[in-house]
This record gives sequence, structure tokens and C-alpha cells, in this order.
Amino acid sequence: MSSTDLLLTFNAGSSTVKVGVFSIDGAVARHLGRGVIDLRAEPLSLGLTRGSQTFDMPLKAEVTDDLHGVIDETFALLADEFDMAAAVAVGHRVVHGGERFTSAVALDDAATDGIEALIPLAPLHQPQALRFIRALRHLKPHLVQTASFDTAFHATQDDLVRRLAIPRSLHEEGIKRYGFHGLSYKFIASELARKAPHAAKAVVAHLGSGASLCAMEDGISRDCSMGFSTLDGIPMATRPGCLDPGVILHLAGERKRSLGEIEDLLYHRSGLLGVSGISADTRDLLTDGRPEARQAIDLFTLRIAGEIGRMAATLGGLDAVVFTAGIGEHQPEIRAGVAKRLFWLGLSIDETANAADSFTISTGESRIAAHVVATDEEQVIADEALSVLRAR
Amino acid sequence: MSSTDLLLTFNAGSSTVKVGVFSIDGAVARHLGRGVIDLRAEPLSLGLTRGSQTFDMPLKAEVTDDLHGVIDETFALLADEFDMAAAVAVGHRVVHGGERFTSAVALDDAATDGIEALIPLAPLHQPQALRFIRALRHLKPHLVQTASFDTAFHATQDDLVRRLAIPRSLHEEGIKRYGFHGLSYKFIASELARKAPHAAKAVVAHLGSGASLCAMEDGISRDCSMGFSTLDGIPMATRPGCLDPGVILHLAGERKRSLGEIEDLLYHRSGLLGVSGISADTRDLLTDGRPEARQAIDLFTLRIAGEIGRMAATLGGLDAVVFTAGIGEHQPEIRAGVAKRLFWLGLSIDETANAADSFTISTGESRIAAHVVATDEEQVIADEALSVLRAR
Repeated sequence: MSSTDLLLTFNAGSSTVKVGVFSIDGAVARHLGRGVIDLRAEPLSLGLTRGSQTFDMPLKAEVTDDLHGVIDETFALLADEFDMAAAVAVGHRVVHGGERFTSAVALDDAATDGIEALIPLAPLHQPQALRFIRALRHLKPHLVQTASFDTAFHATQDDLVRRLAIPRSLHEEGIKRYGFHGLSYKFIASELARKAPHAAKAVVAHLGSGASLCAMEDGISRDCSMGFSTLDGIPMATRPGCLDPGVILHLAGERKRSLGEIEDLLYHRSGLLGVSGISADTRDLLTDGRPEARQAIDLFTLRIAGEIGRMAATLGGLDAVVFTAGIGEHQPEIRAGVAKRLFWLGLSIDETANAADSFTISTGESRIAAHVVATDEEQVIADEALSVLRAR
Repeated sequence: MSSTDLLLTFNAGSSTVKVGVFSIDGAVARHLGRGVIDLRAEPLSLGLTRGSQTFDMPLKAEVTDDLHGVIDETFALLADEFDMAAAVAVGHRVVHGGERFTSAVALDDAATDGIEALIPLAPLHQPQALRFIRALRHLKPHLVQTASFDTAFHATQDDLVRRLAIPRSLHEEGIKRYGFHGLSYKFIASELARKAPHAAKAVVAHLGSGASLCAMEDGISRDCSMGFSTLDGIPMATRPGCLDPGVILHLAGERKRSLGEIEDLLYHRSGLLGVSGISADTRDLLTDGRPEARQAIDLFTLRIAGEIGRMAATLGGLDAVVFTAGIGEHQPEIRAGVAKRLFWLGLSIDETANAADSFTISTGESRIAAHVVATDEEQVIADEALSVLRAR
């Protein structure tokens, strides 16, 4: 234990919450450890990682609407490992910042209300972070809370790129392309600036169970495959990506599917799971011998390669492709599948480097560089929280 | 007048019908003239073109469900110019051939029923041709009728390209990517084979009020921007192209729009009209000084260029870009706008050749060729009808 101030991060997903513990060391937030709770598991447990050690600690609390029991017990368990009395702030990941939040903010009442007002734009995801924000304000009112937004990194995109080809009145009411996974892309942009400063025009593929691509120019977001919602862009574990709108009209009209059924279909039963009929997880699909599994993988890499081609047109060129997040960092077969489809554009992969998840996986002759970079959303949340703290 | 057999073509759109008159000269259908009726106009008239002459002839008939009056009067007016007694066959353009019709067919009862069974896949468009097929069978039972399908040209696409990232049971039930504008693409493929045989990998942009792109390899369709429905792909006059499915969930859910309202929005109020708020016609938008008009044009060319980038990934390269249909053939500004966004890929336009709508509009140094080719769907319908006749 140290007497340094601590900073916590909360990254609330649809079913899990990741808690990061950072020490504030001058202007730098240093990662000390992290905990993960799967809120759908029974019984609950806190998976804790500190350095190379991992622990799995059972929780007695149950998941209630206000989350008070879970949070109190989590803080108590973390106190066995960290000097929780030194905690001064909590930074939250919030999915949607809309037009209003283009950088991290301190969570006063007005900001919290502003986040709540964006629920209609992300009804399934926005409420998750709000539950933790409210609970922590109630239980730990002495902690400064901040919010970091998944959309904020994309605020630099040109108005044209953010437009959908729908009536402009709807655009003005907020139905436009926002882009997501911005915390991850911000981290990758800073890594690229340090490790590959010559890759001016880069497409970053954040491939996790949610997946998107971001076209960056000198670290600035110019385009993103996800637009208005997290359904957009490339196929994901269970989401379809961009879709012919006629499919939804057909399901609702000719096939009389209800809105709830269509929403469930698009969020939970499409993507890799839908195409394969086997699994939503590329690890399963890569080791499964059945043609349906291969088909899902092939559609995934086809659509990723196509999206990179589309984004090169937005950027007016392409210097580098970067793979990150669970699939992007750890699955050479997926990276090779995408790269093979971009050979015509001048991308060649070094098989040995690719198999080793090396930083540079392209060959020396490759006209386009290919990199693997581990992302760290929690570090960005912590860095942004610290900036907000210091600006107060 | 000649004693040669005549062949008619019927190309029924949502509001107009184009009637083509061809002479059968051995194995070749030669275009003699064409008529157009705008079925929404009051009073009706037949616009007739024969060689360089055009006439506008008033029709007394009214548009009824069975169309009998309109067809009888049209045949009577055409008889003033052509030897209609020599007519032996009528070829129809049918939008949707589903999985069943991958080439032109003679319209017996089974085939007509098969076309009718596809109405659920194209409820707004499929019924148009059926009205004319039924009326002509009743009024002119001696004429052989054939159907040519807009989807058929794309039957060569790989199963993977035709898949949407939705549950495979839906794919097996027919919710897949079919592709449209196939008669136009078939015509362009034959023109390219003759005039640009070295362009092995070509993307053809059929840009009319409906618009799509087709990726061809040696004249064979490998990908198409329109998929399951005619809403898909790039923005069109009043349709949005591919759309984040979350937008439709939001309109139906948060905003309580009915299915009918959403359908109207997507078919009639989106695309260039929606983005500009001014006009669905690129000719109006190009001469309008307002920024909203410019924005619609810029979004159009951005999305076309992006789709060409995506398709190059399907083809694994790109040798040529071909522009056709109303906008593609006659609007150099649109072609230049698309080409400028593909300069990075090695496409350079010769401004003089482009302004003159020349066949080749790329410069001598351009790594990718760009061509302008006039399309002729009626010629393909007539050629296919003749093939069916001769195979009987």
C-alpha cells in the first residue's frame, strides 16, 4: 500500500463491469490492478488482476437495480489489495456523448442529466454507466466522478462523412453517424504516434465481440464503420453490421416480426453466430471443421477488407492497417484472412511475425504496413479523468 | 413498313412503361423505335421515338387495374408507325427472379406463377410487370411472352458475397443479396468485351434515379451494391442506400414511426432529395448554388467512391471504372467527383474527354481506365426474348 492518491475506472458493458485501479503519480495515471464482475453470473464473483497475479473472489451481494450491495462489497474486497481510502476519483466509460460531449467531463448534475438525455440514442447501452454513476454518487459522494465518451474521438470527422442519406431534418435532430470504440482508438492513435509515426493514413480494426474500424489521418478520426448505432459497419459476434434497410422492412412487413423480435435478431442472433449457426466466438469457429464455421470467418474477413477499401477512399490513400482488441491482438488467422484480401492494394504479411503477434506483421517489401497493437481503454479513461481533475 | 417479324419489349417501372419495337433480322433484334407512357400523367400520352424523330401522341384511355384500355390504344397508335400485325413476341423486364430464374424464360402459366410468388421479395416493384404480362396474355394471346430478370446477371456471384450477416435460416428462406440492374450490366459487359477487352476487373456504376454498382471480372458479376432490395448500396435520387439498422429501430422504437411511414421515408424521401432538401435530380443540384445541394452531390460521390473501394477488395484489384445510365452517361461533374476521390488508387481523368462524354475519359497515364458507356436495357430484353424464341 502507498500513500499516493488512487483513481478508479469503471467500464460498464451490457453484462460485465471492469474496475481499474490506478495510482496518480504526478501527471501520470499508473495502472495497479483491475477487477471484473460478470453481472449475469450466479453466484457473483470479482476476478481481480494485480501484476501477474489473478484472484477470483466470491461476492455475497446480489445484483439490484441500484447496485449498492455489489459496489460496497467490491470496494471492501479491493481494500484488501489497495489503499481505497486514498481514492479521489472515478472515471467512467460512457457509450454515447452525442453532439454535446466531445471530450471528458466532470460529472456534475448537469452533465449526468446530459448523459441521461442521450438514452434514446443508445437505449440498450447508455443506461449501464448511468447506474454506476448514480450508485457511486450516493455511496461515495466524496469521489470526483468523470465521464469519457466512446463517441468523442470521432468528433473530428467531416460533417459529410457523418451524414446518412436521409432527410436533413432527421440529421439535425441527431440521426447521424457518431462512431464508437473511441477510447480504444484514442489509445491506438497515441501508440501509433510513438511507434509508427510515418503511418499518416491508417485504418484501425478494433475486433472484439463488438467490432468496428476507424480511418485515421495523423491520429485524427476521419471515418468509422459504426455510425448511428453499434449495429453498424462490419459483422460482429452477434450483430450484422450495415444492412440493406429492405431486409428490416421485409421482416416487419411480409414476415410480421415485431420490433422487439427484430431488435433481438439484430443485437443477439446475427453476425458470426447467425452466419455459422455454431458460435459467436471466432476461436470456436477457427477450430471447428464445419463449412458453416469457415463461411462465418470468411464473411468476417471479406467485410473487414471491403470496409478497409471503402475507408481508403475516405482517406485518399492507405499507409497502414492496425489490428487491436481481443480478436485483432490474438488471432493471426483473422489478420491473415483480411490481409490476403488486400494483397492487391500492396499489403503482404510476414507469416512468422503474424504468428508471434509482433508489432509489425507486414513484410519489408509491403507497400502498406500492418501492425498489431494491444489496446487499453481503461488507461484512456484514467488519463482523461486525471486531466479533468487537474483542470478543476 | 416491312414484312419482317416484330418483337416488342415492355419495361415497366413504378410509374412509367417503356415499349420497345424491334425487327427480327435473322438472329439479331434491331431497334426500330420506342414509346414511353407516364402512367401517373393526366391526360396520358405516348411519347414515341423513331430514329431521330419524336412524337407526343395523346391517349384517350384511362389507367385501370387491368390496363386493357391503355394497351389497346398503345398498340393502335404504334400500328400507325410499325407493322404491328407482324409482332410475334413481347419480352418483359421483371425486377426479381429470386433463386429460380437465372436466365430469361418463356412465360407459361408456371413461370408467371413463379414470378408472382416472388412478390414478397419486391412488393413495390414486382407487381408492375405482372400487370402487363397478364393484360397482354388476355388481349394478345397469340404473342409469345418472355421475361428477363434484373437479378439474373448476378447469379454468378459467390455464395459468400450474397450472404448477409443474419441467421442462416433466413438466408435459406431467401433473405440474401440478389443484386439488380442486371439487364444494364449485361449490356455493359458485352460492350466492354468488345471495346475494352483488357479491363478484366471492372466496377460499373449504373447511375440513374435508381443507382447501383456492379463488380465484374471478365464480364461476370462478382459483387453488386444493391443486395436484397433496391434500397441497398449507394444513395439514390430518393433512396438512402445501405443503412445502419439502428436508424430504423430508432425511428420505429423511440420515434414511434409506423412501418408505412418508414417505407415512405426510405423509398421516397431519402437519398439526394433528403440530404439536399431541394431536389432528387443531380441536374438541379449541380446548378443550385446552395450548400445543401453541394452536400448532396458530395455525399453521392463520396459513397460511390467508397463502394468502388469496397468492391476492389471483392475483385482483388481494379482495372477499370465504367459509368452508365442517365447520370453516368451525361454528367461529367459527377464522374469527375468520383474519380477525384479515387486518384490515390491510380485513376486520373482527362477533363476534355470527360466533358465530351467520350468512351475513354481517363488519361493515358492513368493506372485505372475510366469509360463512359451508354446502356440499353431494351436491347438486352429483345436479345434474350429472341434467344428464348429460337430455343423453343
